[in-house]
Amino acid sequence: MLSDDELALWHMWKRATESVRAEVAADIAAETGLSDPDFGVLSRVEELGGGRLRQARLADSIGFHRSRLSHHLTRMESRGLISREAVGNGVDVVITKAGSAALKRARPVHAAAVRRHLLEPLSASQTDALRTILERLADR
Amino acid sequence: MLSDDELALWHMWKRATESVRAEVAADIAAETGLSDPDFGVLSRVEELGGGRLRQARLADSIGFHRSRLSHHLTRMESRGLISREAVGNGVDVVITKAGSAALKRARPVHAAAVRRHLLEPLSASQTDALRTILERLADR
Repeated sequence: MLSDDELALWHMWKRATESVRAEVAADIAAETGLSDPDFGVLSRVEELGGGRLRQARLADSIGFHRSRLSHHLTRMESRGLISREAVGNGVDVVITKAGSAALKRARPVHAAAVRRHLLEPLSASQTDALRTILERLADR
Repeated sequence: MLSDDELALWHMWKRATESVRAEVAADIAAETGLSDPDFGVLSRVEELGGGRLRQARLADSIGFHRSRLSHHLTRMESRGLISREAVGNGVDVVITKAGSAALKRARPVHAAAVRRHLLEPLSASQTDALRTILERLADR
């Protein structure tokens, strides 16, 4: 069993991690209309593929099950944010002009939201400590 | 825009927070069959209500939209983990015997998973630093 202190730390961890995630997503949605998965898809296709990325590689990168990603891409396609093109035995996800414009609007909003909700509340030494802690957690 | 260091910290934050959440949930699911929302519902109804809690209060506590919670409770009810009872102009969520047994099995698994994925990788001073950081983030 966990001690009271350990359980309190776990609850703080859950609350803080979920609220930072939700507030960054809410800022982006409010200013651009892009949901968290919309922004994740567009920024990955841009960063990993320069605007065109094999759907299977996108699925691995974003950590969605393939069927969930496929349903989500269908909705994004109907909103004109991406298109899909059959290539050999796979499918490429391609950012449209409208998708590219939305991503461009979202980038500074995302940066400001990360700054407001995660970086600014912390001192420089807390930021350093957080970096070390996250490295330890990633190395588990 | 974010600096490279700031963007790297954000990506580490996203990856670490998501992987801790997913691994704790996977340990509980593997050993008890309870999903993350199942465990969240059962532990909140137990802790906040001693086994019986008004559905509206559960919704506030767990942070689900009411319709999402309602659908999830319907599935938990069909699996025999909870029942729902109309009370006045509200509904009480009540843990069944099977739900109580599942929660009892899940508690030590949850404790071990939190220890393994969050607490053990950190030194005592890192744990103290993390507590301070999470307090700062909660106070935003």
